[in-house]
Formats: sequence, structure tokens, C-alpha cells
Amino acid sequence: MRKMTFPTLEQISLTSVLYALSDPTRLQIVKSLAEKEEMTCCSFVFKSAIAKSTLSHHFKVLRDAGVILTRAEGTQGINSLRKQDLDQRFPGMLDAILRVTD
Amino acid sequence: MRKMTFPTLEQISLTSVLYALSDPTRLQIVKSLAEKEEMTCCSFVFKSAIAKSTLSHHFKVLRDAGVILTRAEGTQGINSLRKQDLDQRFPGMLDAILRVTD
Repeated sequence: MRKMTFPTLEQISLTSVLYALSDPTRLQIVKSLAEKEEMTCCSFVFKSAIAKSTLSHHFKVLRDAGVILTRAEGTQGINSLRKQDLDQRFPGMLDAILRVTD
Repeated sequence: MRKMTFPTLEQISLTSVLYALSDPTRLQIVKSLAEKEEMTCCSFVFKSAIAKSTLSHHFKVLRDAGVILTRAEGTQGINSLRKQDLDQRFPGMLDAILRVTD
């Protein structure tokens, strides 16, 4: 697995987070992570009809924006939501977004 | 002025609103509208170094997403934030976003 970098709490930008959440698939990933704490990219593939390469890109956008963390476990990447960081940086925003049922 | 259409309350989609707010200029427009209630596109040009055509595009993205309304007054378009609609559709979200000082 390639070495990944993550923005620090102070580096997380509001517009980047909003952009990361502005895609239906990425929003669905975030909602799933909010319920399940951790998941691999593959476990999401299993539930959706989206190609793994497309999903990997979506996970990268979320990671680069500071929305998720990915840690290596063998050859897999285990993803988790940076909920505490996002709540600290943008109080109330993520909960308000997660509450919406479109 | 061209006839404009606006999404109804039910047509406002979360991902479209998040995308509309994911640009620094558009976010600044929304913050200005939240403070001032109404403004023309030109009054924003006056305060920024952005070309009027670029700003017109930004206002259109906000309008199409359901974030702002534009009403004609002579040859000018007067813009206002659809705060009540957004608060009703996505409770607490806009306030959480407006509170952030990047």
C-alpha cells in the first residue's frame, strides 16, 4: 500500500470538505462510515455497482479533504471517519449533513 | 434580464447545495448575503477582484442549487439567500457552515 498523507486538523479546509461531501457516492460512504466506524474500500464495492478504481478515487478525495483516515492492514486499507476532528473544526456541521435523508 | 427558474423546496438537493458552497467565492457571496439580506451581483464585483462574468456564473450555480433567489429590478438582479428554505430542508446546516471562520 502506498504511503498516504492526511491534512492536520488545522489544514482541513471548509470548502474542501464541502466539495468532498458534494458527491452522492462520497456522501454515502461517509454515512456508512458514520454508522459502522470502519470499513474497507472493498466492503463498499460489495454493496454498490461502482468500479473499485472509481471508489478508490472517491476515498482519496475524502482522505485528502480530511474527512476520513485510512490505515493499512496487510494489503487492505481500513477507512474511518474523522468525526471528532470535523466536529472540532466545524461544530455541528457534519451532524446536520448526516441527518438529511434525501 | 433573462427569465430565471429556481428549484422548489423539495427539489433542493443536499449534494447540489454542498457543491455550490464548496467554492471560496460562492461561500463569500453567501456569507455576505447572510449579513446583508440583499445585494446585486455588481455590489460584490465592487468589493472583489473577480470579473463580472465569473461572478455571474457563481451566482447562477448558487441559484440553480437553490441557495439564492434573484429578482429583477430594472436591468439589475437583486440576490437574496434562501435561508428559511435551507433551514427547513437541512436544519442547522447553513448556520454551522456560516459560523466557520477559515
